[in-house]
Amino acid sequence: MSVTASKETLLCMSLAGRPGNFGVRFHNHLYQQLGLNFYYKAFAPSDLPAAIAGMRSLGIRGCGVSMPFKEASIALVDELDPSAAAIDSINTIVNTGGHLKAYNTDYLAVAQLLETHNVPRTRFALRGSGGMAKAVACAMRDAGFSDGLIVARNEQAGRALAQTCGFEWQADLGSERPPLLVNVTPLGMAGDQADTLAFETAAIEAADTAFDVVATPARTPFICHAEQYGKRLITGDQVAAIQALEQFILYTGVTPTQEQYQAAAAFARGV
Amino acid sequence: MSVTASKETLLCMSLAGRPGNFGVRFHNHLYQQLGLNFYYKAFAPSDLPAAIAGMRSLGIRGCGVSMPFKEASIALVDELDPSAAAIDSINTIVNTGGHLKAYNTDYLAVAQLLETHNVPRTRFALRGSGGMAKAVACAMRDAGFSDGLIVARNEQAGRALAQTCGFEWQADLGSERPPLLVNVTPLGMAGDQADTLAFETAAIEAADTAFDVVATPARTPFICHAEQYGKRLITGDQVAAIQALEQFILYTGVTPTQEQYQAAAAFARGV
Repeated sequence: MSVTASKETLLCMSLAGRPGNFGVRFHNHLYQQLGLNFYYKAFAPSDLPAAIAGMRSLGIRGCGVSMPFKEASIALVDELDPSAAAIDSINTIVNTGGHLKAYNTDYLAVAQLLETHNVPRTRFALRGSGGMAKAVACAMRDAGFSDGLIVARNEQAGRALAQTCGFEWQADLGSERPPLLVNVTPLGMAGDQADTLAFETAAIEAADTAFDVVATPARTPFICHAEQYGKRLITGDQVAAIQALEQFILYTGVTPTQEQYQAAAAFARGV
Repeated sequence: MSVTASKETLLCMSLAGRPGNFGVRFHNHLYQQLGLNFYYKAFAPSDLPAAIAGMRSLGIRGCGVSMPFKEASIALVDELDPSAAAIDSINTIVNTGGHLKAYNTDYLAVAQLLETHNVPRTRFALRGSGGMAKAVACAMRDAGFSDGLIVARNEQAGRALAQTCGFEWQADLGSERPPLLVNVTPLGMAGDQADTLAFETAAIEAADTAFDVVATPARTPFICHAEQYGKRLITGDQVAAIQALEQFILYTGVTPTQEQYQAAAAFARGV
């Protein structure tokens, strides 16, 4: 049901420091399957305000916002959805006739995954302090996790995030051995840090649940080590797929069936 | 040989007040036929400087510039190719690592068509005074047409263009009956002016050659009337296809075979 490109084709895009292939493959696959006259393109902008102004001028319908642009983009949009306002971090912009409204679909995806995996509301350590860490920490707080530790070398950002959510902060995990470990840093991501464990092996072995938001690859050293010890796993490709589905619905107004969504996520992962 | 969209896909675009379907279909068809990882998107920008700044920031590889942006774009690029500098009007921008170089492939296409159609170097009347009119008039001057009349209701622009090329100017054709008539206005284009003849019937019947740059539709009232009287015809779809081929080569560095080019032009026209 693929649609031939025409002057009516609507463009959606992503802005990332290091674009991945997931969004491009997920959205374009669903457009083709559903016969929607859309196209999705990943960009690594050199100038964020110029990219957002270009989106407005060109009528680009939707924009996924990834690291390192999730916080700097806030000043460039016209309106914040509650999902973004609550955590002061956005990952999605919808353009309606030049009016840019921002959302945070990462927040929604994390909340959904904590439910479907039945994660016990125990003490946890979350490594990271950037825009995505804020989305995950706030989703955990709002899901009933009250005993948390933010682990971040950036003391200012780490303390600020801990304070926002009512958690503690430490620069390192130290001797802490919480049952739930959450990585929201690029540690383990394809590239320079591909071989780096997000948590030390003793902490992983002592935990019950390993949750990593790194999607490329989903099988990070952290996840692989936790898997060897039979831990409950939540992986970044799951976060990526659910938040991408929410973006897809916001951009197109169309909700795919569960089968169509699963097929698109499998296609997008198969790189 | 269609290529699946990926993070490496390069985007090319067009900027026009009223985008047509020719460029979108021509370029995307050739990308698919040649297995090139490119995608082409037509835009109607609300803010030209923001659109060009967005091109630079996002690394959009190429940009076709149509009415009414051919002159205003000049101030927004870094370098002019001789084809654009000579006529102070651009229709193509190539982005190489953030450096924007502008060309005028309309000029090249018109020069080529005057040769292949063996148009005698007689007196002519050219209606129009915008950026495309400048490209056509200069190409005619440089091809050896020395006895020309610019017909334009905009006296300032008409006189300036006539002076640039050493031609005369008149607000209306009046009683002139030159052997070659050239339309470089939107008269006859799909929309409000679709039924309007670019020249009065008596002038068309008195001429030998009818040259219209309107591409959508290529069979304008002017061309249809001239055809009834057996005149030599040069149509806007030919200009559009040849200039698009030159753009394609500039953007991709790849020269299609004559067969591939003809097939893409036929596909692009078949809307």
